[in-house]
Amino acid sequence: MAHIKLADGVPGIRGPMLISPETTRPLRELAEVLLRGPNTLTPAEREMIATYVSSENGCYYCQYSHGAAAAEHLGGDYALIDQVKQNFAAAPVSSKLKALLAIAGKVQRGGKHVTPEDVERALEQGATDKEIHDTVLITAAFCMFNRYVDGLGTWQPQDPEVYREIGQRIAKHGYNAPGWERSVSATGK
Amino acid sequence: MAHIKLADGVPGIRGPMLISPETTRPLRELAEVLLRGPNTLTPAEREMIATYVSSENGCYYCQYSHGAAAAEHLGGDYALIDQVKQNFAAAPVSSKLKALLAIAGKVQRGGKHVTPEDVERALEQGATDKEIHDTVLITAAFCMFNRYVDGLGTWQPQDPEVYREIGQRIAKHGYNAPGWERSVSATGK
Repeated sequence: MAHIKLADGVPGIRGPMLISPETTRPLRELAEVLLRGPNTLTPAEREMIATYVSSENGCYYCQYSHGAAAAEHLGGDYALIDQVKQNFAAAPVSSKLKALLAIAGKVQRGGKHVTPEDVERALEQGATDKEIHDTVLITAAFCMFNRYVDGLGTWQPQDPEVYREIGQRIAKHGYNAPGWERSVSATGK
Repeated sequence: MAHIKLADGVPGIRGPMLISPETTRPLRELAEVLLRGPNTLTPAEREMIATYVSSENGCYYCQYSHGAAAAEHLGGDYALIDQVKQNFAAAPVSSKLKALLAIAGKVQRGGKHVTPEDVERALEQGATDKEIHDTVLITAAFCMFNRYVDGLGTWQPQDPEVYREIGQRIAKHGYNAPGWERSVSATGK
């Protein structure tokens, strides 16, 4: 049961978002621009960073919904997402993305953990200053979203089909499309 | 030196914000509505929660700029802000705010640390569900802002006068007023 009164059958972040429209507006705009806006990192790469951070924070709803979004951006490659969460250094992703995921892992623990060597390695692998900036902000933002979802004890269904539907909708329509609050619930309605 | 190229003489979060206007817009809107929008918690109470979380995260720029904002909302009571950071349980603030700060302390470490007893205590001290929601989201948001500021190694001046000016400007004009990016720098210009 959630820590405060939230609508029944509404999973994860959507419960608290429904009771606070004034903060939901900038939060959804942030997610949209950060994960899907014009960028030299693909939406799949950005969703993988979000998924990895959410996994490190142990947030079930976030890691499976953003993991599904990443997989759907890649034509349904859910196995790759599992590899990135378990051991990104051994996953078949670019050396640049691995260097950015290493920075994400530091920021997840706290901003001061990032070293000049972490940044140097990312630059050597071809990352730009803006990509490093975006990696730090995506990680920081998911340290927020994860705490928002878990800190209120939201309901987080375990059915993979729920997350597949969420991932497909995000990949197609994004975070800010009208009607998000009426879409996929635990009953699939 | 910052981890990536940022403008000289621009302190804390403003450096990265200047190179990413597309994410800065929702971040500033979020800060404005969360800390200064219509709410049964006063702006001073919300800034105290933000300051306490930033202090726990060890973010110098955030704890002193938001601490100054809280103090300026209270007519310049900087001593109270120091007490809240050092030991809020012994500070002369309401029992309700103490119960909310206890929840903030849990969320800062991770959302799953919050217990039904923490929430029950806040309700007993007169907090509403929405106030508990807002406390969790303020805490979560500062776990983001703190990581954004420290994860990029931003320049954080130590001169108290810089933070006093920042606090006065925030208390008067807020986070979203035009011209924020031209205001107070290290040289006070």
